[in-house]
Amino acid sequence: MNRFTDRLRDVQKARKSFLCVGLDPDMARMPAQLLSGGIEDSLVAFCEGIIESTAPFACAYKLNFAFFERHGVEGWRALERVAAAVPPDILTIADAKRGDIGNTSRFYADSAFSLPGCDAITVSPYMGRDSVQPFLEYPGRAVFVLARTSNPGGADFQEMLVDGEPLYARVARLAVEWASGMDGEAGLVVGATDTDAARELRRLCPNTPFLVPGVGAQGGDVPAIMDAVGAAPGNALINSSRQILYASEGTDFGRAAADAAASIRDELNANAEWDLAP
Amino acid sequence: MNRFTDRLRDVQKARKSFLCVGLDPDMARMPAQLLSGGIEDSLVAFCEGIIESTAPFACAYKLNFAFFERHGVEGWRALERVAAAVPPDILTIADAKRGDIGNTSRFYADSAFSLPGCDAITVSPYMGRDSVQPFLEYPGRAVFVLARTSNPGGADFQEMLVDGEPLYARVARLAVEWASGMDGEAGLVVGATDTDAARELRRLCPNTPFLVPGVGAQGGDVPAIMDAVGAAPGNALINSSRQILYASEGTDFGRAAADAAASIRDELNANAEWDLAP
Repeated sequence: MNRFTDRLRDVQKARKSFLCVGLDPDMARMPAQLLSGGIEDSLVAFCEGIIESTAPFACAYKLNFAFFERHGVEGWRALERVAAAVPPDILTIADAKRGDIGNTSRFYADSAFSLPGCDAITVSPYMGRDSVQPFLEYPGRAVFVLARTSNPGGADFQEMLVDGEPLYARVARLAVEWASGMDGEAGLVVGATDTDAARELRRLCPNTPFLVPGVGAQGGDVPAIMDAVGAAPGNALINSSRQILYASEGTDFGRAAADAAASIRDELNANAEWDLAP
Repeated sequence: MNRFTDRLRDVQKARKSFLCVGLDPDMARMPAQLLSGGIEDSLVAFCEGIIESTAPFACAYKLNFAFFERHGVEGWRALERVAAAVPPDILTIADAKRGDIGNTSRFYADSAFSLPGCDAITVSPYMGRDSVQPFLEYPGRAVFVLARTSNPGGADFQEMLVDGEPLYARVARLAVEWASGMDGEAGLVVGATDTDAARELRRLCPNTPFLVPGVGAQGGDVPAIMDAVGAAPGNALINSSRQILYASEGTDFGRAAADAAASIRDELNANAEWDLAP
């Protein structure tokens, strides 16, 4: 399998998109007509509908494990079916935020990377090197380490100064160092809500792919974040979830999601440092 | 439901035990005769055998989610059955190390606390307050926040100095602060492999329950860690996994696990600051 960043660059160029669609299926916001068939089928029907409608505008899908796991066995079964529904040339990211001692992380890695077509996973860095490294042993895959997250609490620890540098910067530098010589690649989760941090992280890690949540519902500004991360094919995935999934909560959810995805895709491209021509 | 620390104190006094048995079922190390019935049944048979044999010596079981999740739907189904097999007066801890932005953590909390009899969960602090707080909204439950973990990489970030104090201490202080006034309680994960950190954490958080992994296979010394955490009923759970589960990898795994659990329980009690008399 080719390296993740090569595949990311290729799909982004081919599909002319930086957009990663986040799949956070919330039964409370799904159209009523999808809810008749039980939990598993409802989750799958909704996500398949979203994938089908938005695939022309996306380069990746991010599966938010919590929204599936909360439904126990049925949710887990849905997760596998949804992963299988992503078109093969589009990337699939397991947003699981795992991390444990070495021999346990190995099993979390196994679990995520055995999902159909799974290309990458999000990982929490707090437990250090041996908690991240097992995820880096999979050729062609990427491990997006949480650096600076988009939520209000993101600043609580990530902005703390360690020897004069913010913790998020230290995490980023070490994550890239840990990946050196490994079969997989390191990426970073870089929230759209702190463009200063994003700019600093890009300075520190010029060639690392960034997974950027927080535009839309969380308030991140598109032109500012695209500039801060120096978005170019292979180096940045901009995630949007709620703004697309729940553009309409009615029967026309697919069409509304497509419209929202197209419009975000276009806005991202308008602010990228690359030529749209194939 | 009574508060977690009250229930912990009661069960520890009633059962005269600080021992938390970690359920990390690894098919590669399970006795061959258990493997005939498929993944789900094998995991359940092994864990039920361990629970039945070790219950006389344990005050809690810790379910290591990774060892179940790696088997997908079958593992998830096994997890629910194993949680249901824990005797009702013994506590159940979901070792899931979750943590995400607020609205997503809510679903992880839902997922863990809807497991049969689940009393507590382990949570990663890296994403800050809104990632931890949703777990604290469940009356009678505890949230064990990773402070100083027992693995080699634990030192990578946790020992970094922030305004003159190690990150693990800052995490601990904030976790306790976040729990103030909430329905649930904060606990801390404090590895047995760094007794200096454990002692400092006990000084900072005199009444907080500590979940202590790392004795046995990971090398933590029992007398040293019991002294460092000032173990008394309601304030410390000492976890052992591999040393008990794989005491024998043959047909006598139950008896061997019981012997190992009894011997660790006795060693813990011999080093505790409390009177064994009921």
